[in-house]
Amino acid sequence: MKLLEEKIKKDGEVRPGGILKVDSFLNHRIDPQLSFEMAQELKRRFEGEGVNKILTIEASGIALAIMTAYVFGCPMVFAKKSKTKNIADDVWSVEIESFTHGRTNTVLVSKEYLGPQDRVLIVDDFLATGAALRGLRDLVRQAGATVVGAGIAIEKVFQGGGNQLREEGMRVESLARIAAMTDDSIEFCEE
Amino acid sequence: MKLLEEKIKKDGEVRPGGILKVDSFLNHRIDPQLSFEMAQELKRRFEGEGVNKILTIEASGIALAIMTAYVFGCPMVFAKKSKTKNIADDVWSVEIESFTHGRTNTVLVSKEYLGPQDRVLIVDDFLATGAALRGLRDLVRQAGATVVGAGIAIEKVFQGGGNQLREEGMRVESLARIAAMTDDSIEFCEE
Repeated sequence: MKLLEEKIKKDGEVRPGGILKVDSFLNHRIDPQLSFEMAQELKRRFEGEGVNKILTIEASGIALAIMTAYVFGCPMVFAKKSKTKNIADDVWSVEIESFTHGRTNTVLVSKEYLGPQDRVLIVDDFLATGAALRGLRDLVRQAGATVVGAGIAIEKVFQGGGNQLREEGMRVESLARIAAMTDDSIEFCEE
Repeated sequence: MKLLEEKIKKDGEVRPGGILKVDSFLNHRIDPQLSFEMAQELKRRFEGEGVNKILTIEASGIALAIMTAYVFGCPMVFAKKSKTKNIADDVWSVEIESFTHGRTNTVLVSKEYLGPQDRVLIVDDFLATGAALRGLRDLVRQAGATVVGAGIAIEKVFQGGGNQLREEGMRVESLARIAAMTDDSIEFCEE
């Protein structure tokens, strides 16, 4: 998606440790018009797939996910990070390791809000190692629901998570795909 | 806002300890059409006030805040909860006590994204004791920005936070105002 790539080139900053800082429009300050246009692009890509639920994980995926749900006309559910290991029996849960923060979170979705009737599009702002996406896929499977695919704003292709998940049969659509980053430049994959 | 009151009556559940569970449309599973209509109502109420930034706090305020930002045509910033007490000098920060979780969080906004030019509408899903709203107001003041007011989905009026903040001169607009709750009933304030 050209609009997003141009925004990343203009406002993204590469930080030590393979971090792409896009706090000015995606992660901290959020541009709602861009979010809406990304949501519309996800709608175009997953049109006709019968998506009836959008799933994301708190916190920075929520903005894109609610816009996507709005465009699809279906509910959005966000998985919650829990501090406790004591999991109630009315939730689906997985462990997800955070690439950015270097810790593991227990992630929960209430059983009331995810079940066999759901055709789920997983939405997130970033895809790097794929840990979050894999965790959310596992939550959907626990619920007996169907993963239609994943819609991602920015994929760091060089970290391998996206292609691994594609090899496992998941449809992953990323709106900007970064092939390589250095301190001075960001190179996108050819469409 | 009648639509929201009806939704609360239909789908809200009162839990022990003064907790109103609205997980099915506001806090965990989110109804994007309702979020959009609440955002439009906030626009009507704060029309002409020169709002140029929406501020909320992660995680459950984000959905309503991004919709509100979309309707206003301005950026949204969400304050982040930090685990660490070591605060970098490029952020505004406050301590906020959580009514629901009974712990204190350090809450941060990057100085880049909040400054004297900003006329800020603070948006959140709940207002009870007012701790979160007071903290966000203090962040805005640290930045030298102007608090235009607060737009809240559900105010638990009987907990007093909203009226206290109004007495301190803040304009607080809540879309559903709960006067009293028992296990069996939820009573709204007269408009």
